[in-house]
Amino acid sequence: MSYESYFKEHREEHLEELKQWLTIPSISALSAHKEDVLTAANWLLDTLKRAGLENIELHPTAGHPVIYADYLHAPGQPTILVYGHYDVQPVDPLNLWTTPPFEPNIRDGKLYARGATDDKGQVFVHIKALEAILKQEGTLPVNIKLCIEGEEEIGSANLPPFLEANKAKLAADAVLVSDTSLLERGRPAICTGLRGLCSLEVIVSTASTDLHSGSFGGGVPNALHALVSLLTSLHDDKGRVSVDGFYKGVPELSPMMREEFTKQGVDEDKIRQNLGLEALYGEEGYTFVERVGARPTLELNGVFGGFQGEGSKTVIPKEAHAKITCRLVGDQDPQAILDAIETHLKANLQVGARLQVKQMEKARAFNIDPSHPILQTAADAYGKVYGTRALFTKDGGSIPIMESFSRVLEAPVVLMGFGLDDENLHAPDEHFNLENFDMGLLTIVEFLKAL
Amino acid sequence: MSYESYFKEHREEHLEELKQWLTIPSISALSAHKEDVLTAANWLLDTLKRAGLENIELHPTAGHPVIYADYLHAPGQPTILVYGHYDVQPVDPLNLWTTPPFEPNIRDGKLYARGATDDKGQVFVHIKALEAILKQEGTLPVNIKLCIEGEEEIGSANLPPFLEANKAKLAADAVLVSDTSLLERGRPAICTGLRGLCSLEVIVSTASTDLHSGSFGGGVPNALHALVSLLTSLHDDKGRVSVDGFYKGVPELSPMMREEFTKQGVDEDKIRQNLGLEALYGEEGYTFVERVGARPTLELNGVFGGFQGEGSKTVIPKEAHAKITCRLVGDQDPQAILDAIETHLKANLQVGARLQVKQMEKARAFNIDPSHPILQTAADAYGKVYGTRALFTKDGGSIPIMESFSRVLEAPVVLMGFGLDDENLHAPDEHFNLENFDMGLLTIVEFLKAL
Repeated sequence: MSYESYFKEHREEHLEELKQWLTIPSISALSAHKEDVLTAANWLLDTLKRAGLENIELHPTAGHPVIYADYLHAPGQPTILVYGHYDVQPVDPLNLWTTPPFEPNIRDGKLYARGATDDKGQVFVHIKALEAILKQEGTLPVNIKLCIEGEEEIGSANLPPFLEANKAKLAADAVLVSDTSLLERGRPAICTGLRGLCSLEVIVSTASTDLHSGSFGGGVPNALHALVSLLTSLHDDKGRVSVDGFYKGVPELSPMMREEFTKQGVDEDKIRQNLGLEALYGEEGYTFVERVGARPTLELNGVFGGFQGEGSKTVIPKEAHAKITCRLVGDQDPQAILDAIETHLKANLQVGARLQVKQMEKARAFNIDPSHPILQTAADAYGKVYGTRALFTKDGGSIPIMESFSRVLEAPVVLMGFGLDDENLHAPDEHFNLENFDMGLLTIVEFLKAL
Repeated sequence: MSYESYFKEHREEHLEELKQWLTIPSISALSAHKEDVLTAANWLLDTLKRAGLENIELHPTAGHPVIYADYLHAPGQPTILVYGHYDVQPVDPLNLWTTPPFEPNIRDGKLYARGATDDKGQVFVHIKALEAILKQEGTLPVNIKLCIEGEEEIGSANLPPFLEANKAKLAADAVLVSDTSLLERGRPAICTGLRGLCSLEVIVSTASTDLHSGSFGGGVPNALHALVSLLTSLHDDKGRVSVDGFYKGVPELSPMMREEFTKQGVDEDKIRQNLGLEALYGEEGYTFVERVGARPTLELNGVFGGFQGEGSKTVIPKEAHAKITCRLVGDQDPQAILDAIETHLKANLQVGARLQVKQMEKARAFNIDPSHPILQTAADAYGKVYGTRALFTKDGGSIPIMESFSRVLEAPVVLMGFGLDDENLHAPDEHFNLENFDMGLLTIVEFLKAL
C-alpha cells in the first residue's frame, strides 16, 4: 500500500490517539501539574512501544523526566536522533479559548488544543511516520533514536546535563527536530539559524522611602527619572544598541544571505498592517527579515515603578524596575553581553541613584550551513510532498537546546517544522493545521527513506 | 482667669472631645465612607453650636457638605474667615499603624489618629480658641466666619463654585488657615508660598497586541522604548525641564528671598542622610530649599508597561504608561504648562508609536507678600507664645484652594500652621504633637486679640 493510502486509512485512528495525549494538561511550569506531566510521559512510553520502538526508557531528572527510545537495525546506515517535547505552555487567559484547551476539537481542518502544534502534534507525526515504515516494511531505513523531554517550555534546564551524561547513548549523525514553522501555508522552510538569548533585571533605587513630591519634588533624585534615562542610553537614535562591545561576534550579512532573505518575499507593508502599526522600526540599513533573523536586539520587556492606579498620586518613587532580554546572533557570547550591559548601566547611572543588576538566562545562537548535504536532502523531501522545495530561513526566536545538541553531540541539527506562525503558540486557541499533519507524515517518511 | 489657666483646666475635656471626632472615619475618597463623612460634618455642627457660634449651616454640594458658621458682633473691626477641612486621607496600609487609625491614642505627648494633625486637630484648635474667648470675655474682638469643607483630601472640586456662589456671605478682610507645619519643634513658620500643580497621564502605544520578541524583536517599535526616550527628553542633564515655555512666569529669586531661605538653616547633608540618599539632586544653581520652595519641578510619579512578574518574559509590549505631575511657582499657568508638555511629547515621539495624553489637575501657585501687616501680626503672636517669632517660608506642596480663596475673596491668606513635618500626614501613625495643640490655642487667641 502506498504511504498516502496507509495514512488515509489510519487517519481517524491517529487523530483519536493524538487527541488522547492532548487531553493531558502537561504544563511543566506549574507544580500543580507535576503528575499530569508524568502521565503525559507515560502515555508517550506506551505509544512508542505500540509503534514498535525498542529500549524505551523513562529517565528521571531534577525536574520532569526525559523519554528515550531507539530502533538500531540498519548497520552501515546513518543514525538520526529525533528531539521533541511533551510538555506544554500554561493556558491563561482561559476565557479567550473558544473551546477548553484540554478538550481537543477539530474545526475547519484544524485541531484545537494546548500542545496541538507545540509540540505534541509534531512529535506525534514522527512516531506515526516511524510506525508506518515499520508496519509497511518491517524495519527502518536508518538507525533511529528518540529523546523527548518534558521541560522545553521552562528552559530545558535539565537537558544539557542529561546530554553530557548520555553522550555515547545519544550519539548520532544528525539531530532531527520538528518544533518550528513553515514560512506560510504551502511554503515549507528549514530553519538554519535561531537567535541566542540573554536576560537581566535592572533595579534603580534612590531614597529609603517614597517621598511626597510637594515637600521634596525638584530637590531629590527620582528613581524613575534615573531609570528611564539609563534605559534610553541603551539605544542610539538609529535604533542601534549603544552598549560598548554589544556587536562583537555579529557576522556581517553576506550578499548570499541577503539574497536568501529577499527570496522569502516578505511584504513589509502587509506585516505592518497585520500588526496594527504606524510604521515598522529598527536598526538602520536592514530590512525587517534581516533585523529579526540575522541581527541582535535589546528589548525592554517590562518597566515599572511608582503609582499605577487611576488618577494621579504625587509621589517620588524610591525604586524602579526594568526587565530586559537580548536576542543574539553569530558568535555573540551571552555572558560577555550581560557584563557589557552591566558596565554600561553603571557608567551611565545618574548621581544619587543606586543600581542593582540581576543577570538571568544565557543561551548562544544556533547556526547551521544550509549547504550541508542532510539539509539539502530534507529540502528535497519537502519538495516531493509539498510540490515546492523548502527555503532556508533564519528564525528570530530562540530554542537554546539546539545549540547544546549541536555542540555536545557534534552533529548537524535539522529543523523540519510543520507548524504555522499563526497557530497561536503560547496563546489561547492554539491549533495545528491538519493539512501539515498529513503532509508532515509523508515528508518524514520521504526524508528517512532518502537518507 | 488667664487663657493659660483656662486651657490647662479644660485640657482633658478638650482632648476627649477631639478624640470623639477622630473616631469618625471621614475618608472623603472612599464612597463606602460617605455616611461617615456626613457624621463628622454633623459632629462639627454640634460642636460649633456648643462653642457659641451662630448661623451654623450645612451646605450640601455635589460631593460632601461645607459647614458654615459665624459670629459677627464687632462692628468696625476686621472680619476673619477661618478655613479648614473635616475629611481625612485613606488609611492603607493598615498593618503599619501601631494603634488603629480611628481609635485615638495618646503616647509620649502625641495624639495618634488619622486626621489628628491633618486637619481635624488644627480645626479643633480654632474652635476651642474662639470658645475660650467667648466664655472668658462674652464676645470676640473681631468678626469671625468659619468655612470647613469635607473634600480637601480629594482636591476640593466643589469648593471654588461654593466660594463664587457665596462671595458676599464669605467676604472677609483675611482668610486664616491652619493646615501647614512649623519649621521644626519650637520654630514656628508662616507659609507665604505654595506651589501650584498640574498633572497628566501619557500613554504610548505601538502594535495592536503584545508581540513575541523572538519573532519580532528588532523589527518593530517597542512601546516601552518609545516611552522611556520620550520621558528622558523632558529633562536636560543639568536637572532642568527641557519643555519649551516651561519656565514662563517663574520669578527670579531675589537676593532677599535667597537670604530668607538661608535663614531656615537647612542642613542639606542631614536631609540627605535622613532620606537614605547617596546624594541630593536637582536643578543646577539652586540649594535644596530653593529648589523645593521656589522652583518648579516635573516629576514622574509612575511608569509602567509590559511584564512585571518574577523572572523574564520575552514580550514586546504594545502599550506603556506614565503618570506625571508638575509643581508650579509664581505666575506659571497650569493650562499653558500642560499644553507645552503635550506639544513637546508630540514633537519627540519615536517613529511607529502613537501618543495619548490625558490632562488632569490644574492649580496655580499661591503667594503672599510677607510684609503685609496681618502677616506681621501673626508672626508676633507666635513670638509671644513660642518665644521666637515665626519665619516666613515657602512650602513645596500645593493647597490649590488657597489660590482660589485669595482670588475670589480678594483677601490675604494667613497660613498659621501647628503641625510638624514628621507627623506622618497621609501615612500610617499620623499624630499631632500636643505641645503645639497647647501653644496653638494660645497663639490663635493672641492673634485674634492683636488684630
